[in-house]
Amino acid sequence: LVARPAGVCSMMKLPVQASAEGLDVAFVGVPLDTGTSNRPGARFGPRQIRAESAMLRRFHGSTGAAPFDSLRVADIGDVNVNLYNLPGSCRLIRRSYQRIVASGCVPLTLGGDHTITYPILQALAEKHGPVGLVHVDAHTDTGAGALGEKIYHGSTFRRCAQEGLLDCARVVQIGIRGSSYEPDPHKYSREQGFRVVLAEECWMKSLEPLMREVRVQLGDKPMYISFDIDGLDPAYAPGTGTPEIAGLTPAQALEIIRGCKGLNIVGCDLVEVAPMYDVSGESEDASEQGKCWHRQLWVKA
Amino acid sequence: LVARPAGVCSMMKLPVQASAEGLDVAFVGVPLDTGTSNRPGARFGPRQIRAESAMLRRFHGSTGAAPFDSLRVADIGDVNVNLYNLPGSCRLIRRSYQRIVASGCVPLTLGGDHTITYPILQALAEKHGPVGLVHVDAHTDTGAGALGEKIYHGSTFRRCAQEGLLDCARVVQIGIRGSSYEPDPHKYSREQGFRVVLAEECWMKSLEPLMREVRVQLGDKPMYISFDIDGLDPAYAPGTGTPEIAGLTPAQALEIIRGCKGLNIVGCDLVEVAPMYDVSGESEDASEQGKCWHRQLWVKA
Amino acid sequence: LVARPAGVCSMMKLPVQASAEGLDVAFVGVPLDTGTSNRPGARFGPRQIRAESAMLRRFHGSTGAAPFDSLRVADIGDVNVNLYNLPGSCRLIRRSYQRIVASGCVPLTLGGDHTITYPILQALAEKHGPVGLVHVDAHTDTGAGALGEKIYHGSTFRRCAQEGLLDCARVVQIGIRGSSYEPDPHKYSREQGFRVVLAEECWMKSLEPLMREVRVQLGDKPMYISFDIDGLDPAYAPGTGTPEIAGLTPAQALEIIRGCKGLNIVGCDLVEVAPMYDVSGESEDASEQGKCWHRQLWVKA
Amino acid sequence: LVARPAGVCSMMKLPVQASAEGLDVAFVGVPLDTGTSNRPGARFGPRQIRAESAMLRRFHGSTGAAPFDSLRVADIGDVNVNLYNLPGSCRLIRRSYQRIVASGCVPLTLGGDHTITYPILQALAEKHGPVGLVHVDAHTDTGAGALGEKIYHGSTFRRCAQEGLLDCARVVQIGIRGSSYEPDPHKYSREQGFRVVLAEECWMKSLEPLMREVRVQLGDKPMYISFDIDGLDPAYAPGTGTPEIAGLTPAQALEIIRGCKGLNIVGCDLVEVAPMYDVSGESEDASEQGKCWHRQLWVKA
Amino acid sequence: LVARPAGVCSMMKLPVQASAEGLDVAFVGVPLDTGTSNRPGARFGPRQIRAESAMLRRFHGSTGAAPFDSLRVADIGDVNVNLYNLPGSCRLIRRSYQRIVASGCVPLTLGGDHTITYPILQALAEKHGPVGLVHVDAHTDTGAGALGEKIYHGSTFRRCAQEGLLDCARVVQIGIRGSSYEPDPHKYSREQGFRVVLAEECWMKSLEPLMREVRVQLGDKPMYISFDIDGLDPAYAPGTGTPEIAGLTPAQALEIIRGCKGLNIVGCDLVEVAPMYDVSGESEDASEQGKCWHRQLWVKA
Amino acid sequence: LVARPAGVCSMMKLPVQASAEGLDVAFVGVPLDTGTSNRPGARFGPRQIRAESAMLRRFHGSTGAAPFDSLRVADIGDVNVNLYNLPGSCRLIRRSYQRIVASGCVPLTLGGDHTITYPILQALAEKHGPVGLVHVDAHTDTGAGALGEKIYHGSTFRRCAQEGLLDCARVVQIGIRGSSYEPDPHKYSREQGFRVVLAEECWMKSLEPLMREVRVQLGDKPMYISFDIDGLDPAYAPGTGTPEIAGLTPAQALEIIRGCKGLNIVGCDLVEVAPMYDVSGESEDASEQGKCWHRQLWVKA
Ligand SMILES: [Mn+2]
Ligand SMILES: [Mn+2]
Ligand SMILES: [Mn+2]
Ligand SMILES: [Mn+2]
Ligand SMILES: [Mn+2]
Ligand SMILES: [Mn+2]
Ligand SMILES: [Mn+2]
Ligand SMILES: [Mn+2]
Ligand SMILES: [Mn+2]
Ligand SMILES: [Mn+2]
Ligand SMILES: [Mn+2]
Ligand SMILES: [Mn+2]
Repeated sequence: LVARPAGVCSMMKLPVQASAEGLDVAFVGVPLDTGTSNRPGARFGPRQIRAESAMLRRFHGSTGAAPFDSLRVADIGDVNVNLYNLPGSCRLIRRSYQRIVASGCVPLTLGGDHTITYPILQALAEKHGPVGLVHVDAHTDTGAGALGEKIYHGSTFRRCAQEGLLDCARVVQIGIRGSSYEPDPHKYSREQGFRVVLAEECWMKSLEPLMREVRVQLGDKPMYISFDIDGLDPAYAPGTGTPEIAGLTPAQALEIIRGCKGLNIVGCDLVEVAPMYDVSGESEDASEQGKCWHRQLWVKA
Repeated sequence: LVARPAGVCSMMKLPVQASAEGLDVAFVGVPLDTGTSNRPGARFGPRQIRAESAMLRRFHGSTGAAPFDSLRVADIGDVNVNLYNLPGSCRLIRRSYQRIVASGCVPLTLGGDHTITYPILQALAEKHGPVGLVHVDAHTDTGAGALGEKIYHGSTFRRCAQEGLLDCARVVQIGIRGSSYEPDPHKYSREQGFRVVLAEECWMKSLEPLMREVRVQLGDKPMYISFDIDGLDPAYAPGTGTPEIAGLTPAQALEIIRGCKGLNIVGCDLVEVAPMYDVSGESEDASEQGKCWHRQLWVKA
Repeated sequence: LVARPAGVCSMMKLPVQASAEGLDVAFVGVPLDTGTSNRPGARFGPRQIRAESAMLRRFHGSTGAAPFDSLRVADIGDVNVNLYNLPGSCRLIRRSYQRIVASGCVPLTLGGDHTITYPILQALAEKHGPVGLVHVDAHTDTGAGALGEKIYHGSTFRRCAQEGLLDCARVVQIGIRGSSYEPDPHKYSREQGFRVVLAEECWMKSLEPLMREVRVQLGDKPMYISFDIDGLDPAYAPGTGTPEIAGLTPAQALEIIRGCKGLNIVGCDLVEVAPMYDVSGESEDASEQGKCWHRQLWVKA
Repeated sequence: LVARPAGVCSMMKLPVQASAEGLDVAFVGVPLDTGTSNRPGARFGPRQIRAESAMLRRFHGSTGAAPFDSLRVADIGDVNVNLYNLPGSCRLIRRSYQRIVASGCVPLTLGGDHTITYPILQALAEKHGPVGLVHVDAHTDTGAGALGEKIYHGSTFRRCAQEGLLDCARVVQIGIRGSSYEPDPHKYSREQGFRVVLAEECWMKSLEPLMREVRVQLGDKPMYISFDIDGLDPAYAPGTGTPEIAGLTPAQALEIIRGCKGLNIVGCDLVEVAPMYDVSGESEDASEQGKCWHRQLWVKA
Repeated sequence: LVARPAGVCSMMKLPVQASAEGLDVAFVGVPLDTGTSNRPGARFGPRQIRAESAMLRRFHGSTGAAPFDSLRVADIGDVNVNLYNLPGSCRLIRRSYQRIVASGCVPLTLGGDHTITYPILQALAEKHGPVGLVHVDAHTDTGAGALGEKIYHGSTFRRCAQEGLLDCARVVQIGIRGSSYEPDPHKYSREQGFRVVLAEECWMKSLEPLMREVRVQLGDKPMYISFDIDGLDPAYAPGTGTPEIAGLTPAQALEIIRGCKGLNIVGCDLVEVAPMYDVSGESEDASEQGKCWHRQLWVKA
Repeated sequence: LVARPAGVCSMMKLPVQASAEGLDVAFVGVPLDTGTSNRPGARFGPRQIRAESAMLRRFHGSTGAAPFDSLRVADIGDVNVNLYNLPGSCRLIRRSYQRIVASGCVPLTLGGDHTITYPILQALAEKHGPVGLVHVDAHTDTGAGALGEKIYHGSTFRRCAQEGLLDCARVVQIGIRGSSYEPDPHKYSREQGFRVVLAEECWMKSLEPLMREVRVQLGDKPMYISFDIDGLDPAYAPGTGTPEIAGLTPAQALEIIRGCKGLNIVGCDLVEVAPMYDVSGESEDASEQGKCWHRQLWVKA
């Protein structure tokens, strides 16, 4: 056992290796934030999440999870990105994830803004077909585009739906709230058949009943978890670019993650972690992240 | 549509105009904080609220509010204040609000410490007579005075009551908590007939039942909403001068604001926003503020 | 009455005196943090808590508490510590508390990391015998040791149990959560007979029912309250060294403290306050602390 | 005279107008930072510079400058940008500046990352032909490209030279320092005939002698001033994305700006102001900026 | 010897006493900032300076100063102020200093905004007659008034001159710079016969030659030192309300303070320390302060 | 070439390897801060220096240095430390460095507080005999001990001298300043024959002449460079525990480092980097560090 502050920072102090070969599960970073509409900074999400994950230990007292006992896991570093060309970055990410997926490994992604989920799902759907989705976010991210461009962090799930990457009847969006550029902002989601769970429906409630329904909705076919940190209330996760008040609590986030136990998870991500806005000391983002992954690993076991 | 970071910062990117003439509703700032007993800084509240309001969009997904469709709204800038003379500032504010009120426009105020509500209510009561009040705050602000002075941010509502500006049977104070200089700190409020709702009564509860009662209490006569940001728990709104723990949540704040729908609102304010203490990035105060005003505009429609 | 920013900062603006002689209750600081496993800084806890306690006033509106009316209270400054020798510091602390206890005074401690509770309980148990314990924390602090050492902030209550300082059937640990180095992290606590209340059991619930049970469990024999600030969710108390997500709320903390009313309190502490991580302005830690002590004083009255 | 904190924030409290028509000089913002290689955030430069410029007063005690007495000046707001397409943004900027230049007005630009100087100089050179340049920066910004793209903040002046926008014999780069991706990092500048003044040549020296030479070099033909805030030592201007140690002092910066007096200035910019990294309170960037523009205005008079 | 973080924070860990009786020299705080024109916060200057002065030790290696060997020194706490009435506060300060001066003790003041020097000099001049002045500042503070009031932090030395508190031929103002509301901002100072030393005259120079002249100018009659922290460049002292770029360095500040050795000092102050803007950790203000007082004490010995 | 934000953070993006075997030069971290007398935090120095070193590129424009062309360099991670036992940590460090030295590799250390230089020099002197020393610091670190202990960050060089690890005639201490616990604080250094260069001797001067003398003094026998970041003025390096005003500038630091070219360097360190106090964004420490090492590598080539 070494002192916590010691060592080069890999995710959860796992070994670092160059490729996903031979792994059951791989942590991979995508340091991109040029799809951000308001405050940038999520390019430093992977670095910060790794640094803070030094707090995480092998076992979980509340759930009994001990993921490293049954899974081969490593940190395979970051996908390279093209900071000056957003569609170009999407192509680079897609190609990298094709290689990861080809090796039979489940990618756990450290973002990066929400744009990156689009090329990741392209790579996953090539192998698994359209996937189910548990999407935690303040925003539906189903815009038609912005400033004349089709691709940015607010249009990800419209892009995915249009390309047939999602099994639309098995999509749920949780934590949605806030103002919008459109008079009926959830219309697109409804038309696709997504379930939209407003933040207002979650206030002061346990989400265990919701997750029982979600497990039924998702069934046992391949599914993906996309967790935008702004789904949480900004008091718990100030380090993000487009915060919206009156969001989920960390307890609810854990209920969602733990509620995914037993589902057929083919990948997941935590996105929109922009550490420069969490000056109070980096406590929230990475711990949350760590807890989430911890559980995910267990789910796979 | 322009990129969010673009443009000179007016409230919600509304047009700026010099007077309230021709408007239904006007945003107006009062950059004063010399009535503050502990940490100063609310003089920069209006500037910061405007800067952060760039996040707000025209429509609200949860409530369907679309205030700009039916109301003429603008930002009319700041009232000038005398930073070195607190009673003098109150006279300047009263005079400015007399002009706003005379134009038939409803003022939505960006504070400033809570002292400013006193001259604002002077101007409003001249036109409307004694008004009802929904007052969200950690403190009753009914002190007799402090350090030998009658006017400061902790005596506002005693001043108002003494001058007959309030319709005392239609006053409710929500979120009250903390220690006090007096052995029975709510005595004055009780004696005037104010309803005092302690924070303890709100913990872990929806405030919709309370607001149903409040709507009955307030009826359809003119009323004012005064929202001291320290009514919220400081985890959600650290940027304020006299924080008290165990306060309201943003969800509860939205329940209060939305619960005022249909009331006869003649003005409202958000006060005690001191942005320098919200170093983590300005997420809370202004979003909260924006949501509140967004709804207010809708209420008027 | 003086302006709040005025004066040399003693706890709650109480008089400073060199010893505990003649006091019912004494505030005492222990500026030590070399038992910290992750982020240091709690050595500045006493200084910061004193600075922020300037916000506290004599009376409490919600509880009616007026502790200074019936108790002789003062701030007796800080215990000197040996920053370069952790066991040596423990000996210095034990000796200082022996003197405080000998004077018949109840010590209210401003920490400092959680290591300090070990020598404090040594001194208290010499006088009172094994004591009951209400322990609020994210961690059980019952590790066997770390990095080859027996004494650090994560092994405090194993040390205490092994030396017979605790009346194990009257120990309750509240708020426990997070990952662990051991597969069954609560085993030691269970074996001693401690009651362990997980954070998961507290989520979105009032703790008044729990505290009714705790009062029965503790009875009327001597007991101690040890409050690790990381028992709270880090959104409310970011200034600490080993934060864990999804913790208690300030409202729950007040329910715990107020729920101890009538118990036979022989001392209490607030530990792990590391102000450098609470950059947003010092609102939480000390207010929380102040509320707690305020109530404690009342309890004694 | 109004209190400093009062009012909607335009640059130096100047009037805001929609176009440059009728002006001698116009402040204009370009809120773009997607050309940034390291830390993003300069998209908020214009907003922050405006907020801080409230400190600036009409006259300058040391230089006697009183620019508003002889020039028509206003703030014409921000150029819209396409945050998701860097070459597209460059086209938008070029077009906006063509309109400004067509009106006969001199643009003073608030950046934005250094990429923006490329389309600005395109617009200026269309009118004035190749221009001279005083370029203050830690970096020459003459890279061939990066990550496969030609346009980003590190290749601006190679792009400009290749398109014939610069009168290369009248270009000086001041403050250059730091490590590089190329073994001979100043080779390109030398080959074009630029004068490169290393930071090492400036250490602990007045730059008045240098500026005498620069005035001779630049002559009386049209010239542009491009001031990258990272030319300053990061102690004075921490709010920037690619800081390099051992840079210029503010006194030297003022010597450079004042040393441009009498030159034929057709435009200038301040770029790479990323306020989120200047948490200590925003003192430096904007004051520096303000001083610079103040003088610039005077220079024009 | 105790650990540095230990103890209730008095200035330099000196004893605290209620009055100046029996002292040669007394530290006294004036926690007022309602005379501030831009960013408030100096009301917390005394508290912060005391906290940081824990770093100071008994002897000075470079100067050999050992002030406590020959002087009786203590911290006498803070003057009470009226936060809501600026002229009223001035009356309270004057009265408090009359008592201090009457005891024969030299006051070393911890500010507070620069307004406070006016009532302090009223009290000193009552005893000593008009005094000489070494005034370090970015601003001359000789305005006629502001916002309709005569008294604020920018008019202090005009008030003093008009009341005959200054021996005008023995006044020097060092570090003056920046923009101004008046076309000839140093005119008033010149007319009174003050020496004005611009920051530009100090750039990159030792101030020892200046201080030799100052010692001649001041002679051996009573004099006062008033040190506005904004005389320093804001890189060294960001914690202040009206920063101006290109100021003095700490080395120059020490040259000024050490250059006052042998003068007939009847009091001195450090003002405009607003710690909330020095988030990087409080290094500069108090150390500077400490060094200054350290030397001052020595000067008196 | 990859984007700068990408990748697991090793020092300067060098390969990570488990031991020093086969290397000419190795970066190694020592995450210890329990020898700190004032503000802790240097345990996170190695992590932060690695994170910020992502800014460094292969070549240096001003010096022509290209160290990686001729040297085998890697990052060998961190020495494990015992956070709860300072002498125990020293033993662990000594043993680790014995292994590094045995491999024939030159260690470049990332600290950690200054205590760590003591066991490092024990290991180096075992191989090389007493070494020369260029020691940059605000403090001589020659105390006899503190709080009853011999080993802490203020006694390092007395420990080294007493154990014969230093060739005392070849020791120079640069940047010394500030107050002290002893009346003649440089006496011990003088008695050993160290050259002490006060900060006062460096103010506003190039240090090239000094370094010419230092090169003569040091000759061609083995020497070590120990760089305490507090040797710099805290404006340039706020992230440290015991800041002292009026220190060295980064330009002077580079003159010192570059002035060591050609000396027989057997190791060097950068210590006392406590990143939590450098909230403004981490620009200074690591860049400085990077520049230093960059040069060091070159020196070895
Ligand atoms: Mn999203
Ligand atoms: Mn989102
Ligand atoms: Mn209030
Ligand atoms: Mn309040
Ligand atoms: Mn604990
Ligand atoms: Mn704990
Ligand atoms: Mn540049
Ligand atoms: Mn640059
Ligand atoms: Mn002044
Ligand atoms: Mn000033
Ligand atoms: Mn040192
Ligand atoms: Mn040092």
